[in-house]
Amino acid sequence: MALKKAPMGWNSWDCYGAAVDEKTVRQNADYMAKYLKPYGWEYVVVDIQWYEPAAESNEYHPFTDMCMDEYSRMIPAPGRFPSSKGGKGFKPLADYVHSLGLKFGIHIMRGIPRQAVHKNTKILGSNKTARDIAKTASICHWNTDMYGVDAFKEGAKEYYDSIFKLYASWGVDFVKCDDICRELPHEESELVLLSNSLHNCGRDMILSLSPGPALLEKSELYKEVSNMWRITDDFWDKWELLYAMFERAEKWCTHAGNGHWPDCDMLPVGALRQCYDEKEWTKFTEDEQITMMALWCIVRSPLMIGGEMTKFDDFTLKLLTNKALLKMHSDARNSHQVLRKEIAGKEVALWTATDVEGGMYAAIFNLSNKSCTVKVESDDLEVASFANGFEIFTGKAFKGGDVITAKIPAHGAAVYALGVKE
Amino acid sequence: MALKKAPMGWNSWDCYGAAVDEKTVRQNADYMAKYLKPYGWEYVVVDIQWYEPAAESNEYHPFTDMCMDEYSRMIPAPGRFPSSKGGKGFKPLADYVHSLGLKFGIHIMRGIPRQAVHKNTKILGSNKTARDIAKTASICHWNTDMYGVDAFKEGAKEYYDSIFKLYASWGVDFVKCDDICRELPHEESELVLLSNSLHNCGRDMILSLSPGPALLEKSELYKEVSNMWRITDDFWDKWELLYAMFERAEKWCTHAGNGHWPDCDMLPVGALRQCYDEKEWTKFTEDEQITMMALWCIVRSPLMIGGEMTKFDDFTLKLLTNKALLKMHSDARNSHQVLRKEIAGKEVALWTATDVEGGMYAAIFNLSNKSCTVKVESDDLEVASFANGFEIFTGKAFKGGDVITAKIPAHGAAVYALGVKE
Amino acid sequence: MALKKAPMGWNSWDCYGAAVDEKTVRQNADYMAKYLKPYGWEYVVVDIQWYEPAAESNEYHPFTDMCMDEYSRMIPAPGRFPSSKGGKGFKPLADYVHSLGLKFGIHIMRGIPRQAVHKNTKILGSNKTARDIAKTASICHWNTDMYGVDAFKEGAKEYYDSIFKLYASWGVDFVKCDDICRELPHEESELVLLSNSLHNCGRDMILSLSPGPALLEKSELYKEVSNMWRITDDFWDKWELLYAMFERAEKWCTHAGNGHWPDCDMLPVGALRQCYDEKEWTKFTEDEQITMMALWCIVRSPLMIGGEMTKFDDFTLKLLTNKALLKMHSDARNSHQVLRKEIAGKEVALWTATDVEGGMYAAIFNLSNKSCTVKVESDDLEVASFANGFEIFTGKAFKGGDVITAKIPAHGAAVYALGVKE
Amino acid sequence: MALKKAPMGWNSWDCYGAAVDEKTVRQNADYMAKYLKPYGWEYVVVDIQWYEPAAESNEYHPFTDMCMDEYSRMIPAPGRFPSSKGGKGFKPLADYVHSLGLKFGIHIMRGIPRQAVHKNTKILGSNKTARDIAKTASICHWNTDMYGVDAFKEGAKEYYDSIFKLYASWGVDFVKCDDICRELPHEESELVLLSNSLHNCGRDMILSLSPGPALLEKSELYKEVSNMWRITDDFWDKWELLYAMFERAEKWCTHAGNGHWPDCDMLPVGALRQCYDEKEWTKFTEDEQITMMALWCIVRSPLMIGGEMTKFDDFTLKLLTNKALLKMHSDARNSHQVLRKEIAGKEVALWTATDVEGGMYAAIFNLSNKSCTVKVESDDLEVASFANGFEIFTGKAFKGGDVITAKIPAHGAAVYALGVKE
Repeated sequence: MALKKAPMGWNSWDCYGAAVDEKTVRQNADYMAKYLKPYGWEYVVVDIQWYEPAAESNEYHPFTDMCMDEYSRMIPAPGRFPSSKGGKGFKPLADYVHSLGLKFGIHIMRGIPRQAVHKNTKILGSNKTARDIAKTASICHWNTDMYGVDAFKEGAKEYYDSIFKLYASWGVDFVKCDDICRELPHEESELVLLSNSLHNCGRDMILSLSPGPALLEKSELYKEVSNMWRITDDFWDKWELLYAMFERAEKWCTHAGNGHWPDCDMLPVGALRQCYDEKEWTKFTEDEQITMMALWCIVRSPLMIGGEMTKFDDFTLKLLTNKALLKMHSDARNSHQVLRKEIAGKEVALWTATDVEGGMYAAIFNLSNKSCTVKVESDDLEVASFANGFEIFTGKAFKGGDVITAKIPAHGAAVYALGVKE
Repeated sequence: MALKKAPMGWNSWDCYGAAVDEKTVRQNADYMAKYLKPYGWEYVVVDIQWYEPAAESNEYHPFTDMCMDEYSRMIPAPGRFPSSKGGKGFKPLADYVHSLGLKFGIHIMRGIPRQAVHKNTKILGSNKTARDIAKTASICHWNTDMYGVDAFKEGAKEYYDSIFKLYASWGVDFVKCDDICRELPHEESELVLLSNSLHNCGRDMILSLSPGPALLEKSELYKEVSNMWRITDDFWDKWELLYAMFERAEKWCTHAGNGHWPDCDMLPVGALRQCYDEKEWTKFTEDEQITMMALWCIVRSPLMIGGEMTKFDDFTLKLLTNKALLKMHSDARNSHQVLRKEIAGKEVALWTATDVEGGMYAAIFNLSNKSCTVKVESDDLEVASFANGFEIFTGKAFKGGDVITAKIPAHGAAVYALGVKE
Repeated sequence: MALKKAPMGWNSWDCYGAAVDEKTVRQNADYMAKYLKPYGWEYVVVDIQWYEPAAESNEYHPFTDMCMDEYSRMIPAPGRFPSSKGGKGFKPLADYVHSLGLKFGIHIMRGIPRQAVHKNTKILGSNKTARDIAKTASICHWNTDMYGVDAFKEGAKEYYDSIFKLYASWGVDFVKCDDICRELPHEESELVLLSNSLHNCGRDMILSLSPGPALLEKSELYKEVSNMWRITDDFWDKWELLYAMFERAEKWCTHAGNGHWPDCDMLPVGALRQCYDEKEWTKFTEDEQITMMALWCIVRSPLMIGGEMTKFDDFTLKLLTNKALLKMHSDARNSHQVLRKEIAGKEVALWTATDVEGGMYAAIFNLSNKSCTVKVESDDLEVASFANGFEIFTGKAFKGGDVITAKIPAHGAAVYALGVKE
Repeated sequence: MALKKAPMGWNSWDCYGAAVDEKTVRQNADYMAKYLKPYGWEYVVVDIQWYEPAAESNEYHPFTDMCMDEYSRMIPAPGRFPSSKGGKGFKPLADYVHSLGLKFGIHIMRGIPRQAVHKNTKILGSNKTARDIAKTASICHWNTDMYGVDAFKEGAKEYYDSIFKLYASWGVDFVKCDDICRELPHEESELVLLSNSLHNCGRDMILSLSPGPALLEKSELYKEVSNMWRITDDFWDKWELLYAMFERAEKWCTHAGNGHWPDCDMLPVGALRQCYDEKEWTKFTEDEQITMMALWCIVRSPLMIGGEMTKFDDFTLKLLTNKALLKMHSDARNSHQVLRKEIAGKEVALWTATDVEGGMYAAIFNLSNKSCTVKVESDDLEVASFANGFEIFTGKAFKGGDVITAKIPAHGAAVYALGVKE
């Protein structure tokens, strides 16, 4: 399956942790369809623990009981997803999302449920049972739901085939698989088996690997087996994490391409942590959000909104529907950092990208906590001179020439689209 | 509890793996009582998986069902230990062993049964249940029976108290606790909790920690909480492992003392691997067995026989009932390596020890694969001259003086008792 | 000083080791002026030990006597460089090279001569002497000529100023500084001091840092202080080294830019090792040389010929004067590896680059030791379709479309120039 | 050469750094002969840089000129050692020391003088010269006097033979060789060569290796080639360093024996740093000095006084002439730490040793900064009961029994001699 741009959508984790419910998903899907779909946003993804009846926050319940069918496959907790009752799984919810012109995604954990292993339940299409394929000592270090699957055991392929066939029957378009991205090389054989089952299940699905940091030396494997892979541990609304992303993005930038993107993780914008005791608005300043969007878009990271969309304020909605910005996200090629240095005591990073129609982008980041004025010369970007263009966030026109002079606030960014066709 | 010498006994693992049964234990106890007890041998230890009905060899059965009481405590599999039926546990077998004038030991795994966690069974003396005290992600890497216990959780102390009270009621004298010795510092709090429960259970029990290699920097902790701790991974009848033990013994020798001994692991002598497809006699040569016994005894390692005793040949029985050798095991003090070097192309190690009555020992090891003649001078051992004495394995008299000259076969040893009182 | 393309030239090391002489330099300069200058080749660089009278091969003479002026500065050995007699230094030779329309370069070792320190000679422009600025314990690990200079000592700046002023007076255009590139962070202050002196000496000089591998985490520093830096230890005519360069090039490719280039080291082509007992022709096959040139050119590495030019055969001369290839070396932007994977058991790498006039390059490498046929689709390179073009080494036309199909010999390469203007 | 006890003496470093002179040495020798010789003190050692005319403090003068004979051998600076004039070397001073009934020692640096290499001077007994045997890139990291000698080069043996023959002709009894102990394995061949030359020079000399920390895995090598080796970097009068010595001593204690002793470094007692701007008295409290002496003596470390002896106060002199303490230093065998733990919040260490006449020692250290009362039971030391005896520092009698109860001040120690014959 060849894709032309990195996925854009919404994911329930940053707001609802392990406890999102059907009503919330539908309400965010409605909002997306109305306000964001015209700009390219399309995926609605239900994150972790949808099979856990007792989930109530972002904390996990170790060893808790989960909803599972007779073939060792997790199914939605009907108390949280009422439309799934009667063995319908996520089909009704996916149908609804599709009816809005959007796509539907779910989160899974690598492996087979521990409770399946302890009950020794069946595997569809095999006479082996759960205990036969569980991999001894392969567990997730932060969640007790699953044992890893031993790819070399008979029955392992049938198990993975069976879960993706189930998801295909539900109409799933996107699978975020957790506890796998940074578990290489130990769990590489399971990753390959899982990817093969997904790609042969009869329905196109994006495969997203989590959590990071991914291993740079495995870049070609990630490209082969998946569509996106997390280059960072969980990203949240802290400047230190955003600052650190520049170094990660620099290392991974050449690995973005058709159908495969390094993933900078979700965008913690707007209302976050709605399942916490203290509900909170993003702690990022507006300038930091601009910096985040500029970096994610120029490197073509997948864009997955983390906030509760129905509570968006004007700034957030405007930021996420900036057409020129999203055009860069779609069209950028050859993204890379050109330089990073101190200018008059301020740490500055310069990134560039091209498009395939002769346009180019210059993104200037002020990583310091004071505003600064930066000059970028055409020599820096190895062009004879800069074409006419404009700054993406302000819309202000730029008259081509040898120098861009930008005054940039603390933690802020300016991105110039130069010679980019409308 | 103050002990005067390191434990001596028999352990079922080297012969019967996970599958020993009551009949075998009784038959070995009978043999020990008759032939070995007079020499100080006294412990009869049932090793791993006595709670697993389906055990049949040295291989584990991942995720298999186990015998457990309502309070999450493992109990003997009645098919393998018939006298345990009706909730009697190991009491009848321990009573039998005691009736022979011997002591009874069992193996346990650190933690709480995974099946208790999945069934969420009760904990005696607490309103918490198994899931409440299991430690997420603390598992054994080679056995699937247990989850670690989180020492900081309410109910954890009650659980450990409850198992040792049960063992006390059975009459257990010795507990070999597995998956703990080398798991420091991660599982240190669980080790301390377990040790406290054992020492407060109302019955004296030896606490033996496994598997190794133990961590030298934790030597003082091992001394505090246990009586013996494995300084090596599993030891078997291979020269390479015996050769490697010299270096381990050198590092640990100063840590043997009253009630606490570095443990070189079981003695793979005689008939081994009786539960394997190929039953086998020890692959050690007689000289290698002499070397092993000489090293274990001079450093005062616990002595746990690994072979099926009823099949002992004359050599083995004689080796294990060598009075002078076992006197050194009992009386040695200040054991340490004096030198290790090449003499005429042969690698030689010289060890020494004293006793508290003015006697001394000199153990000469030929670590090369050719016989060699070694001269030890009184200057080497910093005495004015050597007292009269004898060589321990041959019984040959040594007339005191300035030099010991010993011809030692390949992989062999000679041990001189000098000025040692009868 | 802004440069538009990476330096191209000749360096004496691969043929003459530590022992090149003036006659040889002149003869190669003559050849370059006649046959290579029209294609952009211009630097003639005298490598290491030009100040050592006794040099005779590629081996160093530890602690040997060297030619030095009264101010602790190395000067050419007059026996090897006759025109330097009478204190003229390299001025006459540089003048000659300039008279041919070429540029002149020399090699230096970081630091101050050990013999200056032992004689405690003067420093021009300072009342400090050699011992005052030598850095204790900072020595080169493979050459005994120098002590490092302690940048924090008075007199250090004057010393470095004095040597670059001398080189400027000689007419030096290029300085290859050794024992410094991979010596970070220990010698960072000396590197910065040295770079400042060079850039303030009154004459434009390229600064080339050696030996590698350079440290990726210091990439921004290299860009700031130098023009090129070695990303590898010495490169020679062995396939293993060429194979390994792909991984190095992948890591460094985004760091090439205006005036600063990661350096893949000299090109061991044609007649090599003329100062060795066994003179030898390059051991690279023709296909391997094509692969080398394709990689060096697409990543814009500096190109420094290692072979004796007057002995070039037709293949070598043609390879080094391939106009389309050298145009890619000059014009490539955004070079990076797109993928690397096994196709039918053959390991293949795909690289791409653009130019600033709408053209693009696709370089396909066969890293296996059997020939193979590779298909590259326009989707792989994220373009709607490929423009018309040609293969650079064969000159064969390519008619645009969705697929490039290339049959590539073992260890060989094919490079397509697509939509590139003449 | 078999030795019966570890060397005891005085070394000039702690007081006079690189700058000791003949007058000072003679004055300390006089003091030792009068006040300390009766207690076993005998070595007078001239530490580093005796060949440097300009030495004036504890700081080194990088690359400075040194006194050397025509055969590349350092000789005493006559300005500092007037009796050495006329090529007499240290012979007159050694003769004087010998006339007092004492022994004479010197410090050397591993290798051959750098100035010999630069002047390329001769080697006695060889037609090779200094440059031929210097080892490229083998230098000391904290002193610029020497290059290492390449043991595999012709002339290397002759050089080392020639220096030890010179020292033998002077009457040297003790050689402290620096820049070698912790330089293994790199400089192992030079160490072996040097040791062989020393042991074949025709005069008995102690070989002391510096600086530490020595490598535990090379313990057998140190024993073979030397008499003492530093187990620590330079030791000074700081509690942190004394505290840290307990762990070092524990690791090395079994390696003390006849003619070979792990070395805890000099004793910084009394007046120190007499060549510094600020002359200072030791910063150790009296209790800390007792702790130091107790530890050094029970492990049989060499004892080398660091302070200016003529300024000793009563406490210091009494401490260094405590007969019972020095008897333990002489007679202790089997020294080792028995336990180290917290008792009521105070960190305590218990050491023991035996002698060869049935006596034993128990040393109790209070490593905390508050006084504490410690009970040691006979079980702790594995004896039936304690014999009669006395505390070594107070002289207070101890009536034998099952328990020793000692109140020990902060950072202090109590050492019991039990059943030790007069």
